[in-house]
Amino acid sequence: MDVHRHFQMELEELKELLLQMAALVEKAISNAVQALVARDSKLAKKTLNGEDRINKMEITIDDMCLKLLALKQPMAADLRFITSAMKIITDLERIGDQAVNIAERAILLNEEPQLKPYIDIPRMAEIAQSMVKDVMDAFVNRDSKVARSVCARDDLVDKLNDQVFRELLTYMIADPKTITRAVHLVIVCRCLERIADHATNLAEDVIFMVDALVIKHHADNKGKKR
Amino acid sequence: MDVHRHFQMELEELKELLLQMAALVEKAISNAVQALVARDSKLAKKTLNGEDRINKMEITIDDMCLKLLALKQPMAADLRFITSAMKIITDLERIGDQAVNIAERAILLNEEPQLKPYIDIPRMAEIAQSMVKDVMDAFVNRDSKVARSVCARDDLVDKLNDQVFRELLTYMIADPKTITRAVHLVIVCRCLERIADHATNLAEDVIFMVDALVIKHHADNKGKKR
Repeated sequence: MDVHRHFQMELEELKELLLQMAALVEKAISNAVQALVARDSKLAKKTLNGEDRINKMEITIDDMCLKLLALKQPMAADLRFITSAMKIITDLERIGDQAVNIAERAILLNEEPQLKPYIDIPRMAEIAQSMVKDVMDAFVNRDSKVARSVCARDDLVDKLNDQVFRELLTYMIADPKTITRAVHLVIVCRCLERIADHATNLAEDVIFMVDALVIKHHADNKGKKR
Repeated sequence: MDVHRHFQMELEELKELLLQMAALVEKAISNAVQALVARDSKLAKKTLNGEDRINKMEITIDDMCLKLLALKQPMAADLRFITSAMKIITDLERIGDQAVNIAERAILLNEEPQLKPYIDIPRMAEIAQSMVKDVMDAFVNRDSKVARSVCARDDLVDKLNDQVFRELLTYMIADPKTITRAVHLVIVCRCLERIADHATNLAEDVIFMVDALVIKHHADNKGKKR
């Protein structure tokens, strides 16, 4: 097999590992929120236990990228793909940490009567999870259009977060006994908001990689040639 | 001049640029918080205007790293140094974004009577800023001991954040008219907490780079050989 073809196969393997890591992270988000909504602390503990596997994948992929850089001396688009992959796994690992934070709060909340029906929180989680999924697809397919659609969804998560925060404030003001539970829920929302932020950062990296455009510093999304 | 010596000079230049970018980010944090404490909205606007320069430095350094990877084919420690630099500038840029968020809240808060004396917030800011400074020194000097001291300070910021949050809740509960201002302050604290989180992430990268130890997934900080 020629060297070039071998390198392309290694890049395919890298993509495969990235998608596997992302799938674990997506599952961690949905399990953590499901643990809250279904009041299922066993599922929450499963999320906590799953963190180790995500962390190990980060190390495996990071190693693989370093080896590709050192031994294959990739140029141009491949070089950018590999350095982007190294940034992406950092974000994925941090998203995994946020899922763990949610699972921890779910365990605490499941020990008390439910403060309110959870409607906006699963909605936020669903959007955040879809952002992670889509941004990874955008990355491996080098599709900046999909990446742009991910950025657009961040606002929606922020709005839902504000809405839940205001609602929780009214609970706290009406009855100070609800404060502990409300604060746990504020933190769950904050975690989901951070997941959406990470997905947005990833989307910006993908757009940067694909278009060599610097939209990230231009909130108007019009972009600017480097 | 021989090739090796030239490469070492380029690495020195990279370090210099990283420290310059970090200095801009540190200044943005201190200006944003000073704008709040001294009720100086002009200073807040200066912080907003400074963001562009930080963003441009990120692009310059990112470009430089890619060129070093592509043209110099660095190995081992230098390779890891350059890929770490690429991750670090992403965090620095996000820290800069948090400083902008603080400055925006300061402008809003300065339009209303001051809710409470600011004591813990400048303290949090001081710690967060020292974390950014020290982690960058740790990076350029490849000093994992200093990086570990940065990780240790994260808890202190989290504790101050919890403390301020609880205090602000008592204001909100006692007088719903304070809610808007209190929420702005909650968000300022959250920004400072995120800055400390970014600095901690950076410190973990530095420790990883220097010791090839994976402490980041071992909260006990004992580390584990790869």
